[in-house]
Amino acid sequence: MIDLADAIALVERTARPLPARRQRLAAAAGAMLAEDVLADVDSPPWDRAMMDGFAIRSADMAGRGDDAIEFDVVLDLAAGDTTARTVASGACARIMTGAPVPPGADAVIPIESALDGTAGARAGARVRLREPRFRAGQHVGRRGAAFRAGQPVLRAGCRLTPAAIGLAAEAGATHVRVSATPRVAILSTGSELVPVEAIPAHGRTRNSNGPMIASAVERLGAEPIPLGIAVDRAEAIRAAVAQGLAADVLVLSGGVSAGDLDLVPSIFSACGVEQVFHKVRLKPGKPVWFGQFDRGDAAPRTLVFGLPGNPASSLVCFELFVRPALAILAGRPAKQWHLPRVRGVLTGAARSASDRPVYLPCRLVGDAASRGIEPLPWTGSSDLASLAIADGLVVIEAGQRAEPGGEVEAVVFPYGGLPR
Amino acid sequence: MIDLADAIALVERTARPLPARRQRLAAAAGAMLAEDVLADVDSPPWDRAMMDGFAIRSADMAGRGDDAIEFDVVLDLAAGDTTARTVASGACARIMTGAPVPPGADAVIPIESALDGTAGARAGARVRLREPRFRAGQHVGRRGAAFRAGQPVLRAGCRLTPAAIGLAAEAGATHVRVSATPRVAILSTGSELVPVEAIPAHGRTRNSNGPMIASAVERLGAEPIPLGIAVDRAEAIRAAVAQGLAADVLVLSGGVSAGDLDLVPSIFSACGVEQVFHKVRLKPGKPVWFGQFDRGDAAPRTLVFGLPGNPASSLVCFELFVRPALAILAGRPAKQWHLPRVRGVLTGAARSASDRPVYLPCRLVGDAASRGIEPLPWTGSSDLASLAIADGLVVIEAGQRAEPGGEVEAVVFPYGGLPR
Repeated sequence: MIDLADAIALVERTARPLPARRQRLAAAAGAMLAEDVLADVDSPPWDRAMMDGFAIRSADMAGRGDDAIEFDVVLDLAAGDTTARTVASGACARIMTGAPVPPGADAVIPIESALDGTAGARAGARVRLREPRFRAGQHVGRRGAAFRAGQPVLRAGCRLTPAAIGLAAEAGATHVRVSATPRVAILSTGSELVPVEAIPAHGRTRNSNGPMIASAVERLGAEPIPLGIAVDRAEAIRAAVAQGLAADVLVLSGGVSAGDLDLVPSIFSACGVEQVFHKVRLKPGKPVWFGQFDRGDAAPRTLVFGLPGNPASSLVCFELFVRPALAILAGRPAKQWHLPRVRGVLTGAARSASDRPVYLPCRLVGDAASRGIEPLPWTGSSDLASLAIADGLVVIEAGQRAEPGGEVEAVVFPYGGLPR
Repeated sequence: MIDLADAIALVERTARPLPARRQRLAAAAGAMLAEDVLADVDSPPWDRAMMDGFAIRSADMAGRGDDAIEFDVVLDLAAGDTTARTVASGACARIMTGAPVPPGADAVIPIESALDGTAGARAGARVRLREPRFRAGQHVGRRGAAFRAGQPVLRAGCRLTPAAIGLAAEAGATHVRVSATPRVAILSTGSELVPVEAIPAHGRTRNSNGPMIASAVERLGAEPIPLGIAVDRAEAIRAAVAQGLAADVLVLSGGVSAGDLDLVPSIFSACGVEQVFHKVRLKPGKPVWFGQFDRGDAAPRTLVFGLPGNPASSLVCFELFVRPALAILAGRPAKQWHLPRVRGVLTGAARSASDRPVYLPCRLVGDAASRGIEPLPWTGSSDLASLAIADGLVVIEAGQRAEPGGEVEAVVFPYGGLPR
């Protein structure tokens, strides 16, 4: 049995980032870029009208203050139109937002500045424009002002937020290299388990760990591969484990504690999985097992977690051990490996003074300035009812007497169960 | 032209929650429950061993302190096994975690408490047990201790977190009623637009709004339906709009400002979309259009947004107007309708003192106690480069002089673009 901090450090040292992968841009939303995105065009790609109006030479308008000035409209340009014709002094082009500013012109007077009913003037007509606050070059997006072809527009490590997706699209990135999406095989062991669709007979219970772990894996941006239920017989578990070892991670629950039907550690060993640790000073979650498997062929090693079968223990171990492993495989920065922690004042009685650190479901009350941590009623490690509405887990350190009013720490789930 | 606050209030008043839908549990992760989940079984479903060990009658061990006591092992029970045989005084059942406690027995002595090499004792053998801190009923999960059949285990309004998914699975909820996933048609208009795969010729530019809005819609848990690009011709836009009006929301970009090619408002009107507002005191984003369409047949009305074509304007309008609409359609509580806001000290110069409120990309610096808001360099409403790495948008109110050192407010994106 090892200390919790040592166990977490072993997970952190064993997990290695998976190779980045090339992904269609539209399918990469939310992912982390593994390399810079370079633009293949300037942006704007040409001098572009930013308003509907009339494209002129700045020299024709500069310094004219309140004067109304008349121009010959020589061109009509909508978005998508182009012209080689030059706008001379005294002339202008009627131009729509998004159209290229024609040669010669370098500023746009908005349509609202046309006087005497000339706002609708087209090529061949005349328009009277007044622009008291005229600035040279106004309302023109200059070619390359945002970025230049060949420049990086997004750096490795950026998240593909909606704006970043738009920017990458503008830069021509149909595909991007992003951090890996770990593939996580999920197996529940136990002869008592039946699928959620079944009505459990006496002695049976539903497989809640499978859907729970799959959902937690998905929340972390990884890909769950549900392997269902294996009964407590060596050949059944061995076959399912062999299948799971083809994934990047195998998360198995059940069969890792002290009983003679806890076959899992010996099956792991028979399958060639190298044990890193078994049993951790932690409550709930003591029987947790962790190892790695060499897939050969230069493939990354498969990380293998044996979580306790009780659902609450299983979830606590997932959050403490599997979460950082998946974050590391996905190439996330160290700050994102673990659940955030807050300190606060314990507002109620919590089971305390164990010889192991205890993680119990809690609600956060008050605000950051005056944080209360309220333990939730809990009937034991198979009870998901309070975990389902918990904001996080209050941590009672080994030997700590957790009295109401005392200061404690909590790890906080990145999602809340109850509406506020 | 109306004030921003009035425009937002009109969106909030027009949007109505969509009817809840029935969903497979595994596909409902992260969704909000629209009705209570009732258990169809007790949990635990029967008195269950919580440790590997020996099931005894509490009366045989209570008050015996340090004494070692001998028991006849009369049964072997693994998880999934059941028995009708009663454990009498002086007898015990070897029992594995998760197995039903047999009739008569009501406590479990862990295997570690077996003395003199009797830990492996099976039915027919004897075991010597010592349990100095014995508690009556220990290590037994009592039937119904967590919840009872017929009771609600999760309430309407809860999010389906991983623990909630596990709990619902245990309670037999193969399907759940959850809040609606709005279907959002996305259309980019503009004759200058080409798809991201194309190299834009002179006068052309890539459709960055389409993938950007699709990604923003997906982030909010709604379903994007990309309709691609429509050129600036009435028949092309009308056909695409008619298609989009079959969705719950149509988000169109481009074609809503003052020019004569801004056909969109008249096409909306011709298609029977009722205008709620057009043009808002806001920078960027003034031309934004909002309306609703009666689909008939008692279907919910389609909400219709015309966003400006410039990508940054488009994203700002999405965050201010479309975000709350999608949150309301999905039945979210009012606290989740809008981006969170923070106050802080402006750390650099920002364009200021417009007659409209200005929203500019910014980074947050410092921490909650000493928050700095740093405006990012920005070349105008078509520039996504700084938005892609922004933490949010700093708000410069109409007429406010935004000097470095002054206090300002920012809306914060729920995702960060840059690694920290």
